[in-house]
Amino acid sequence: MARVAVAGATGFAGALCAAIVNGHPSLQLTAVTARSDAGRRHDDLYPRYGVGLELEEFDADRIAERADAALVAYPHGAAALVVKALLERGLKVVDLSADFRLDRELYERYYQPHEAPELLDGAVYGLTELHRDEVRDADLVAAPGCYPTAALLALAPLRDVMADVIVDAKSGVSGAGRDATRTTHFVSVAENVTAYKVDGHRHRAELEQELGSEVPVTFTPHLLPLDQGLLASCYVTPREALTVEQVRDMFEEAYADEPFVELADAPPGVRDVRDTNRCRIHVTVEPATGRVLSFAAIDNLWKGAAGQAVQDLNLMLGLPETEGLA
Amino acid sequence: MARVAVAGATGFAGALCAAIVNGHPSLQLTAVTARSDAGRRHDDLYPRYGVGLELEEFDADRIAERADAALVAYPHGAAALVVKALLERGLKVVDLSADFRLDRELYERYYQPHEAPELLDGAVYGLTELHRDEVRDADLVAAPGCYPTAALLALAPLRDVMADVIVDAKSGVSGAGRDATRTTHFVSVAENVTAYKVDGHRHRAELEQELGSEVPVTFTPHLLPLDQGLLASCYVTPREALTVEQVRDMFEEAYADEPFVELADAPPGVRDVRDTNRCRIHVTVEPATGRVLSFAAIDNLWKGAAGQAVQDLNLMLGLPETEGLA
Amino acid sequence: MARVAVAGATGFAGALCAAIVNGHPSLQLTAVTARSDAGRRHDDLYPRYGVGLELEEFDADRIAERADAALVAYPHGAAALVVKALLERGLKVVDLSADFRLDRELYERYYQPHEAPELLDGAVYGLTELHRDEVRDADLVAAPGCYPTAALLALAPLRDVMADVIVDAKSGVSGAGRDATRTTHFVSVAENVTAYKVDGHRHRAELEQELGSEVPVTFTPHLLPLDQGLLASCYVTPREALTVEQVRDMFEEAYADEPFVELADAPPGVRDVRDTNRCRIHVTVEPATGRVLSFAAIDNLWKGAAGQAVQDLNLMLGLPETEGLA
Amino acid sequence: MARVAVAGATGFAGALCAAIVNGHPSLQLTAVTARSDAGRRHDDLYPRYGVGLELEEFDADRIAERADAALVAYPHGAAALVVKALLERGLKVVDLSADFRLDRELYERYYQPHEAPELLDGAVYGLTELHRDEVRDADLVAAPGCYPTAALLALAPLRDVMADVIVDAKSGVSGAGRDATRTTHFVSVAENVTAYKVDGHRHRAELEQELGSEVPVTFTPHLLPLDQGLLASCYVTPREALTVEQVRDMFEEAYADEPFVELADAPPGVRDVRDTNRCRIHVTVEPATGRVLSFAAIDNLWKGAAGQAVQDLNLMLGLPETEGLA
Repeated sequence: MARVAVAGATGFAGALCAAIVNGHPSLQLTAVTARSDAGRRHDDLYPRYGVGLELEEFDADRIAERADAALVAYPHGAAALVVKALLERGLKVVDLSADFRLDRELYERYYQPHEAPELLDGAVYGLTELHRDEVRDADLVAAPGCYPTAALLALAPLRDVMADVIVDAKSGVSGAGRDATRTTHFVSVAENVTAYKVDGHRHRAELEQELGSEVPVTFTPHLLPLDQGLLASCYVTPREALTVEQVRDMFEEAYADEPFVELADAPPGVRDVRDTNRCRIHVTVEPATGRVLSFAAIDNLWKGAAGQAVQDLNLMLGLPETEGLA
Repeated sequence: MARVAVAGATGFAGALCAAIVNGHPSLQLTAVTARSDAGRRHDDLYPRYGVGLELEEFDADRIAERADAALVAYPHGAAALVVKALLERGLKVVDLSADFRLDRELYERYYQPHEAPELLDGAVYGLTELHRDEVRDADLVAAPGCYPTAALLALAPLRDVMADVIVDAKSGVSGAGRDATRTTHFVSVAENVTAYKVDGHRHRAELEQELGSEVPVTFTPHLLPLDQGLLASCYVTPREALTVEQVRDMFEEAYADEPFVELADAPPGVRDVRDTNRCRIHVTVEPATGRVLSFAAIDNLWKGAAGQAVQDLNLMLGLPETEGLA
Repeated sequence: MARVAVAGATGFAGALCAAIVNGHPSLQLTAVTARSDAGRRHDDLYPRYGVGLELEEFDADRIAERADAALVAYPHGAAALVVKALLERGLKVVDLSADFRLDRELYERYYQPHEAPELLDGAVYGLTELHRDEVRDADLVAAPGCYPTAALLALAPLRDVMADVIVDAKSGVSGAGRDATRTTHFVSVAENVTAYKVDGHRHRAELEQELGSEVPVTFTPHLLPLDQGLLASCYVTPREALTVEQVRDMFEEAYADEPFVELADAPPGVRDVRDTNRCRIHVTVEPATGRVLSFAAIDNLWKGAAGQAVQDLNLMLGLPETEGLA
Repeated sequence: MARVAVAGATGFAGALCAAIVNGHPSLQLTAVTARSDAGRRHDDLYPRYGVGLELEEFDADRIAERADAALVAYPHGAAALVVKALLERGLKVVDLSADFRLDRELYERYYQPHEAPELLDGAVYGLTELHRDEVRDADLVAAPGCYPTAALLALAPLRDVMADVIVDAKSGVSGAGRDATRTTHFVSVAENVTAYKVDGHRHRAELEQELGSEVPVTFTPHLLPLDQGLLASCYVTPREALTVEQVRDMFEEAYADEPFVELADAPPGVRDVRDTNRCRIHVTVEPATGRVLSFAAIDNLWKGAAGQAVQDLNLMLGLPETEGLA
């Protein structure tokens, strides 16, 4: 049994990390931390998850005594130093923030000066379907953003044939985090849908990095009146004409052995994958235009955050990749 | 006071037609018909609308005795002969189905053999912002589909500069009609979002007709967990580079005098226009790609159906275009 | 045209007050105030309502120059002195807070020390169906709380026959106000329902005052995943056995001439009255127990707040009671 | 590994039965049947559950070859003969319909003539918290209705002190079943709440049977705009005055060893128990009236149907009661 701590266990993603680790047959949840709420029990905040541990303030030394690995679910910027402290004490770490997903130049262009740039070289972008072997060998893995996870899985098999790509993404509100704001107020969201950050959402950086910067990527996120779920509708102009059979072959080949990617005969709904770590994809070619349409649905808190982080951790610890996630 | 009948007044769009006419200062609602439910009061089915008339079976002669104009809200295919019967009896008609929106070739390619093709020449496509003068003079106007309404208003000022266009459209469930199906079951829709008819939704025909067939149009509708509201997110590759100022000027010029089109500084939400006849548009140029992004939000039952039909009728009857719709 | 100001026009109820006054044929909206957001246009915050005025900071003198009457939509406690300032300058006032709904003893028991107790004697509890004549003659009317509005209309005809009463009330989130809190976060509300303030919600005071304190009243509010709408399910043990016919006669008699109360053959849904000023009631007698069940549905922002306030104002100004509200 | 079949595996409850059995460490799912949809894979209808079996038509002999026990999720009336056929072939059966929950007199009063009355004597009402020992020894267990499950757990500790009780129950739409009707149409449910069957819902029969007919029970179900979840708000007039401490002691004593009942310090939300087999209860005494208020939240598909059925089956097979349900 590997001993695992979750730092930042009261945000939506961190809370689910704690729940998944708590129910994992080969992991033992030994500590949950919170910047506020220390002293309260986790299941007082999240009764549904049934995690009976008491939340404590973050203290790297005390964590290191009790944990072999950690999942860190801090906001970007705040995560870097927490991750550093844990790595220095010998823990393997999966970080759910953006702090270790990008190279320094790209990070500082989209975010801010980096707090621990010396760690970037050793960090692996934890989309297992694209970087499985590197994840296995890493001590520090950056779990991808929710939007890039869905978009990259929808697009990866097409990387070599894309002339351009548009990602129209739709997310539930849990993706906006637990902060109570005008944007997350029920009355703002219910019976509504709207695009946001149309002049440049930061998750675009991950798309650029993983798809290659020579492909122009349009990326527009939308906020939807639902809790958990994310759909990436991707529109790809191919470099040369492709038949639907060719395209489907490309996807079947790419994902034949992937335990968490499933190809569907019809466009997926986010409900199809709710509370699972799966990504469900449908790809087709629009007859009228020859454009390739690829739709990928995930649960933003599972495959888009906590589930993926545990998938990474399984690999890092030599456990079966799907354990605790089925 | 012009006397107006609503044929097919128990579907979502028809019911709202009856409500708007009922509250209109210059129109008198004289008859509401329904294929089933005849004999029941309209406000028994739709208490919120407060229309106290009894539903009756459709009888063109009896309608003609009591009405100068009619709004017809039948399914496509069934509408054509109802419209014909009313026109023959001297009524002005706004038809909300697809039956008179397209030329014969396009209609029969996307729908079915036309039941009254001889009327097509005299029918006007009732998107007032594009065809106001023709609507004014017409006896038969076809109210546009909900998706084309939003998409065309988002795209019309760009018609001459588009190299290609992708319309990713999101609709509430009232757009799917009142039939109870697996698709419209609450449990199918709640906490879900999915694309549908990705191999060709019929509303594409209207986009082709109004935008010109030389521009390749990708059009993908999505079903969202909300009742009334439709957002068209449009991605346009311009033929040559445009600045955001140039694009905004094009829209301001196009819509300067339009009473129901408003330009917004930020992406619109469908809640901004709920239960109104307005179309709210935000247009920008994505810095990273130069692509023009245009977002248009409408209430699918108002500007996308019943409100637009009354807007057409106002013009046909020589009334102020906004009357009864503010 | 009476000139009307709305003080506190950016909360949900105040914003709707502004919209209703703005569309009212006999009222002219001359000022909208806001404690924050001054300088912004109202329709920038609430595009749907289409009120083009600029928000200004509250200044009693400047308001008095331009208005004959005011609707005040401040939080309780803060409202009293604003109301006082406007009354002193000769305006008629409808206050939407709790500050003038109760006698001093009851107010200070449930709320806090009263800021302007000298005005209480002249204030009228503005449930028009119970106090129409007093409202007509008043300079200061207190619009009732949303819960008491529905519950009192469900119960008033039974006042003389009740042995006890339980009110299980269900409200949409707009009733909780515009503040962004953990409670109003979309993720807290969606796919949820919960009772709250089960040890005593302040609206109980209004029920006690209007029903008479000798009847024990159990009142439990619940928060529901919807925006606008409030249902009061009331369970009354009658002092002596009543038939369903007797009970329905009592309601028909009580509400025969009420323009905004409608009796329904089946339990009402809040959707039946959404965006209307109506209260829809169904009453029956449970065969197995003889208990009287009375269900009243309102839109909490209309009949439960802004609509009712305008209904009061219509009476105070000698206008038709329903004007601007149909 | 006990081999288990699920008969009627395409309704909401039956589909979840299949999913729970499929993931259960000591049970093997060997057959899933459906009256329509035979020949399709279960995960084609319910992708989220990931059950890869093919649906087959019901055939008692073929089931008996492959199963030691069965969960039957047919509508009432249709279930009785299916259950009988399986019992005759030696299977242990948990039936999710109403067919074996009541004695014959009560069943035929609320439902219809019974199809297999000879089995009623051997059937056990499967609310494990009240009938654990009988469930353990039974070959046929009737899983309780969703409403009675929540209400009985909220009320059982008070059985000896109740003078009367009102149950105001609120359910998500999955409780109304998979049939597409006007009632379950998204547009009917969204932004709505309504009471239904106020003159007598059949689940009242179970309350009468388990609470004793001498206590008058008012029971009113409401339909809410959410998918899974059920809240029973119970109002009990005690025979003599009780303090909140006394009441809480009664509940703590009653449920001290119950693995699936948890007592909470505040009113529970259905979200607290979503996708779990738990019942979360808060009980208090209203200061103003001395009335006991008890709120119980469950997931109607889990503790209110499929989860409870597996809990029963665990006991019948000698397995740990919580296995496969945590």
